[in-house]
Amino acid sequence: LVDLVLDIPPGEGRRAGLEDALRRAVRSGRLPAGTRLPSSRALATDLGCARATVVAAYEQLVVEGYLEARRGSGTVVAPVRVETSAGPSPRRARAAGPAVDLRPGEPDRSSFPRAQWARSLRRVLEHAPDDLLAYGDPLGLPVLRQALVTYLARSRAVAATPEQVVVGRGFTSELGLLARTLVRGGVGTLAVEEAGLPFHHRVARDHGLRIAPVPVDAEGLVVDHLDAVGAGAVLVTPAHQYPLGMTLSPSRRSALLRWARAREAWIVEDDYDGEFRFDRQPVGALQGLDPERVVYAGTTSKSLAAGLRLSWLVLPRPLVDPLLEAHGWPGSVSALEQAALADLIGTGRLDRHVRRVRARYRERRDALVAALAVAAPWLSPTGVAAGLHVSALFDGGPDAERRLVQEAAARSIGLMGLGPHWVGPPRATGLVIGYSRPPAHGYRSALDRLTTFLAEAAPPGVHRGRRGASCDALMIS
Amino acid sequence: LVDLVLDIPPGEGRRAGLEDALRRAVRSGRLPAGTRLPSSRALATDLGCARATVVAAYEQLVVEGYLEARRGSGTVVAPVRVETSAGPSPRRARAAGPAVDLRPGEPDRSSFPRAQWARSLRRVLEHAPDDLLAYGDPLGLPVLRQALVTYLARSRAVAATPEQVVVGRGFTSELGLLARTLVRGGVGTLAVEEAGLPFHHRVARDHGLRIAPVPVDAEGLVVDHLDAVGAGAVLVTPAHQYPLGMTLSPSRRSALLRWARAREAWIVEDDYDGEFRFDRQPVGALQGLDPERVVYAGTTSKSLAAGLRLSWLVLPRPLVDPLLEAHGWPGSVSALEQAALADLIGTGRLDRHVRRVRARYRERRDALVAALAVAAPWLSPTGVAAGLHVSALFDGGPDAERRLVQEAAARSIGLMGLGPHWVGPPRATGLVIGYSRPPAHGYRSALDRLTTFLAEAAPPGVHRGRRGASCDALMIS
Repeated sequence: LVDLVLDIPPGEGRRAGLEDALRRAVRSGRLPAGTRLPSSRALATDLGCARATVVAAYEQLVVEGYLEARRGSGTVVAPVRVETSAGPSPRRARAAGPAVDLRPGEPDRSSFPRAQWARSLRRVLEHAPDDLLAYGDPLGLPVLRQALVTYLARSRAVAATPEQVVVGRGFTSELGLLARTLVRGGVGTLAVEEAGLPFHHRVARDHGLRIAPVPVDAEGLVVDHLDAVGAGAVLVTPAHQYPLGMTLSPSRRSALLRWARAREAWIVEDDYDGEFRFDRQPVGALQGLDPERVVYAGTTSKSLAAGLRLSWLVLPRPLVDPLLEAHGWPGSVSALEQAALADLIGTGRLDRHVRRVRARYRERRDALVAALAVAAPWLSPTGVAAGLHVSALFDGGPDAERRLVQEAAARSIGLMGLGPHWVGPPRATGLVIGYSRPPAHGYRSALDRLTTFLAEAAPPGVHRGRRGASCDALMIS
Repeated sequence: LVDLVLDIPPGEGRRAGLEDALRRAVRSGRLPAGTRLPSSRALATDLGCARATVVAAYEQLVVEGYLEARRGSGTVVAPVRVETSAGPSPRRARAAGPAVDLRPGEPDRSSFPRAQWARSLRRVLEHAPDDLLAYGDPLGLPVLRQALVTYLARSRAVAATPEQVVVGRGFTSELGLLARTLVRGGVGTLAVEEAGLPFHHRVARDHGLRIAPVPVDAEGLVVDHLDAVGAGAVLVTPAHQYPLGMTLSPSRRSALLRWARAREAWIVEDDYDGEFRFDRQPVGALQGLDPERVVYAGTTSKSLAAGLRLSWLVLPRPLVDPLLEAHGWPGSVSALEQAALADLIGTGRLDRHVRRVRARYRERRDALVAALAVAAPWLSPTGVAAGLHVSALFDGGPDAERRLVQEAAARSIGLMGLGPHWVGPPRATGLVIGYSRPPAHGYRSALDRLTTFLAEAAPPGVHRGRRGASCDALMIS
């Protein structure tokens, strides 16, 4: 019989404390399987509590499977997995970000309109009917889908009705859902721009599509190459190619639409930073030209904050029901935040926020381009008219590019090379410099550190690319 | 040459208004492809605006692909998809809920602690560092995972470290992710309880698993049958079988764990309503008995609100990295709401809320069971000790069950039959009566309408089941 020394915390009820102590003793292996426990009377005496307390605790743990009640031989410990001393699985340690973060992909976190968002949420929580809190429509909250239709028509020339809008939690997961939908519809291959986001390609593959890279040049995606890869759909960034930065030219836009109609293929338009265009008004979405062939994807990840995980697809009508099939039930985005975004749009606050940050990002872009021209004339910035990053090409080759990024990292300057973006062999080298991440007060010094670094780090043998001509280097035969 | 009558809204800037009017005219088919537009000078005169405005608008629409600039022949309309008069796709009309909603699956929406949630959100928005707004950890916000570990240990006897917790947006989508993870790990078949949620089975299938039903009886899942179906994993509801309501018995709990260890199989514990047990303290989670074999799944959908879409998995350590692989990047749940839930847990407000609603649901349960005993003695309520629904069995057969549900619906009483829950042929008939949905002020009258209906609707030839013995009818040979 075991001499049961239990560590019962004083603050809790006797019975809960006793149960918890017994669970821990069993789990830790201190009471191995088969151990016979003291009788309830004996333990109650030891602990100075009522016998009923011990009986109840034993019964509870029998129900839970920690103990077994054996006829005639009292209560014994059941065979329970004993905790090993093995610590947590060796997850990759999350490296703290670099001191100067000039990687692309995220807006300035400090620009998030906290007060406005709080106001919208408060209004929702005070006034929304209880039905908001139900499982709700898998495609998203009707009031948000209506607000998005108006917002996207105004800001991006998107042509849609609310029935075509699906609210999601970021383009990557929507792409997974879309991939499953397309695969069920008989699509086998998704053409992608030869430079893009590797985790987009991965998620499309994970959900059943083959990936076929197609070249890009100074006019964007080379549409003529689509037929060679036999794609049933193409993922494209028309407004601001990621990462190279060019805009799909007018003739390519019509060629792409012609291709999609002729092949009955789908165009997936990733409009990740469509709100940000600095030199003239934004180029309207491709979707508006053919809402029956183009899936439009937008997000709050650049305009508000990546941490919101709130985005949308606008679908051609024939894809709505298949996507709903693949999605299943229920929805996947908090109804409260959907309603808050609808409020933010409906009150005009999202537009005002976007205008405000757009002006700030334009200043940042101007400062970056000017600084690069002085400190690193060997870099040729491209794609500067839009978005939150600049691609700065140079002639150094992949090794020089990698070295440059590593040396920057050694000085705690976060830069990204073009290298990881190529699906096939790299056809250009350069840096993808995001200028949106540093907080406003840190941007000037971030630029100073970047230019100091670049002025010293010019790779040996690099030639200054001809300004504005860099994407011509991608001209394919 | 076209006589261009454009409907330019007065409130907007001339140029934006002109562009939008042109887009609409092209899209609507009023300006068919190939139509030559007036010269910029002519149109400017017509509209009484600066020629530069028209030139800029034309240029913008050329860039967007609505117009084409042809050398020598001016500006013509590009081939753009013309809107058809076909209305929105005929989506299933969303039926309004029944006047008296006694279907299972959702808590009382009016019980959501709006003020507390608003307070937690406000605190997050006022005090959280900007880094909260980043893409963040795909597994979830560390502060929430830490809070969940403490909460689940206290409330559900779950044994975990934060590294094992994954925050998700509802069990159904987590099940899809888990299915992909298991399939990659070589699992082919997921055993499920023979009565369960069809959309769980569907999502598991959609993500690559075969589904094999296993019988349940009065003690819950019949573990002996697992080997016959060759399952590499089993989905089970130990605390409160859904929909039949029994608790997995102590001997079955240990048998299930023995099976999983011997076969190196995974147990997926769907603890959907584990917070709600009325007659004694909750039965601790199966997970605590073997954290290396059990995937524990919990949710806020019953304790707070389904519309939050916020839930969690606790994974055996060996599954963490494979699941992260299948999940990809980035995360999928709003960081603001994750932080708010961490606050709600950390301040003890979630516990208080659960205690408060648990007491109310217990009263509802008591009233329901008492009312059924009087009005419908032919029904045998089972699984009344826990959860937010009662399964009320009777001997009438599937047709009688279907008729009963339909007749209730005709009187706007929402009930659910057992029928749709069976994977194979139905082995019992009955009603699954959820008592949590009606708002507090409407519960009494909801019960009155139910009992009035049931008193009149007794299917011909039904016999009163022996009270408490109904699940014995499921005893398998």
